[in-house]
Amino acid sequence: MELQKPYLLFLGDAADPLAAKVAQGIKQWHPEYCVGQFRLESCQADCGLEDMTIEAAAKAGAKTLVIGVANRGGIISEEWISVLKEALEAGMDLASGLHNRLNDIPELVEVANRAGRKLFDVRYPTQSYPVANGKKRSGKRLLTVGTDCSVGKMYTSLAIEKEMNAQGINVDFRATGQTGILISGNGVSVDCVVADFIAGAIEAISPDNTDDHWDILEGQGSLFHPSFAGVTTGLIHGSQADALVLCHEPTRTHMRGVPEYSLPSIQECMAANLATARLTNPAAHFVGISVNTSQLEEAEALALMDKIETETGLPTVDPFRQGVSRIVECAVREDA
Amino acid sequence: MELQKPYLLFLGDAADPLAAKVAQGIKQWHPEYCVGQFRLESCQADCGLEDMTIEAAAKAGAKTLVIGVANRGGIISEEWISVLKEALEAGMDLASGLHNRLNDIPELVEVANRAGRKLFDVRYPTQSYPVANGKKRSGKRLLTVGTDCSVGKMYTSLAIEKEMNAQGINVDFRATGQTGILISGNGVSVDCVVADFIAGAIEAISPDNTDDHWDILEGQGSLFHPSFAGVTTGLIHGSQADALVLCHEPTRTHMRGVPEYSLPSIQECMAANLATARLTNPAAHFVGISVNTSQLEEAEALALMDKIETETGLPTVDPFRQGVSRIVECAVREDA
Repeated sequence: MELQKPYLLFLGDAADPLAAKVAQGIKQWHPEYCVGQFRLESCQADCGLEDMTIEAAAKAGAKTLVIGVANRGGIISEEWISVLKEALEAGMDLASGLHNRLNDIPELVEVANRAGRKLFDVRYPTQSYPVANGKKRSGKRLLTVGTDCSVGKMYTSLAIEKEMNAQGINVDFRATGQTGILISGNGVSVDCVVADFIAGAIEAISPDNTDDHWDILEGQGSLFHPSFAGVTTGLIHGSQADALVLCHEPTRTHMRGVPEYSLPSIQECMAANLATARLTNPAAHFVGISVNTSQLEEAEALALMDKIETETGLPTVDPFRQGVSRIVECAVREDA
Repeated sequence: MELQKPYLLFLGDAADPLAAKVAQGIKQWHPEYCVGQFRLESCQADCGLEDMTIEAAAKAGAKTLVIGVANRGGIISEEWISVLKEALEAGMDLASGLHNRLNDIPELVEVANRAGRKLFDVRYPTQSYPVANGKKRSGKRLLTVGTDCSVGKMYTSLAIEKEMNAQGINVDFRATGQTGILISGNGVSVDCVVADFIAGAIEAISPDNTDDHWDILEGQGSLFHPSFAGVTTGLIHGSQADALVLCHEPTRTHMRGVPEYSLPSIQECMAANLATARLTNPAAHFVGISVNTSQLEEAEALALMDKIETETGLPTVDPFRQGVSRIVECAVREDA
């Protein structure tokens, strides 16, 4: 799966800015991939890109229309479909991370076939992956793990990729979820792979590389989440991570979606992730803690990060407040 | 997925007895499910059941023809297909655990539709499962786990079910792989479920039950196998096991299929499984060790089991040599 760039971001009839957070993410991390945005009349979101008609976007070179908005009630409306058909006819592929598949809409399939364009439902793997072989791969790998789901693993991974790029380090972000795939243009939505192939899929998206190259792998779930820890385990094993970054959201009162389950302590979570990671890479070690302090006042946030840094001896940052240069420094130093 | 009983076991053109080990397993554990066997002329296996024509089996009440033999080179031959069609026309469903799907053979699909019969490809889940919710379920659960794949988890689970049944305990075996499903008539092939739903599928096949009821869950893989530990993790979490039994094959020189990976020690393996199991059931504990000593002489086997029993303080048996009554006794006692 490799999306053709540049993109036209489809914001549709987004009910509010949050509904278009996928489009916002693409614009934030890769503005250079975006030629413009397409909005319907009722759209309440804005990525700050030039508003374009399909025709203008095609002329500007857009190769893929990316659906960057959540669809209301899981329905892909007639209004959307007529725009999507126009984009196909103008020579663009379509890419979507929605649950509903573009490939399940006969009208779109028919137009895509006729126009020789592709429909990418990035949530659903289209290729088969081999069973993981566990063989050590060349190159270096960093993986984000979490005390819980949705604590900032993708954001932290993209920030690390960006910082390494800025430092001239040879680096690639490896997406493991639909939003990451739309942002980077490739990857695998690992929680949608058949269970036998979780680790194998991760081995496949992060192949052998040059000794100086870093893959930054986006983690998923948490070893402490009773619904998803199987995915997390296979992802950790397939990654063969050298460097781990723990992501944490300090205001959670319980694991996401399961009120009966409390969060692990930072120390307990690090120990479990290390034990799991060392099965396939005995050299695995932590190089930093990434704390999502968006729910805290600055003074409180800084005090909390100081405390975690003292307890763990690891660079502890909020990527949004402080950037991740101290984590990158630690990863590169430990590797030397 | 619920197969209708009784079965006609299809041994086909088995090249040797091992090729028909699925049929042997069904006959061994549930002879009462089997009305007879069907063999082609070149068949080199024998389950010791009455040889029957399709017509005779149908008259004897067979509801499902179960393919109990591995197909050579992954090909379902014309010779098989003509027998399978005859069985459908005689009113039987078909059940198979092979990689090749019966449902991918148009001739069979056509005859099944016409005859109103079903084709069960038990390796491939046909229903969707919910995401696991982690909520504590009523009833008691025992799960087999392993130092490696293919060390006797299914055999041990079935032996425990049989022993509990013999003791008048309210018990069900819960199959998690294709052979177990064919033996018991239901279950889920958990390594073929979409990764997000591993634990949810296990919650679904082992629902709330009466306080005196035991589910005996068949384990899969190993937490120490770099290819499959994600499946094992989700299975352990979904099982919410009260009682764990560790299965071990002492002559393995490395983890199955991955020569770079050595086996964990019994102690290390128990500790990792306990830590994982306790996320969803803090009361999880080991009640026995099951050692497959088929590769050892009796004296050597007994000495090894003595040693493990002394080290772990747990009943340590080879189910084949000694039965599992001591493990059942420990499970029931610890529960009291």
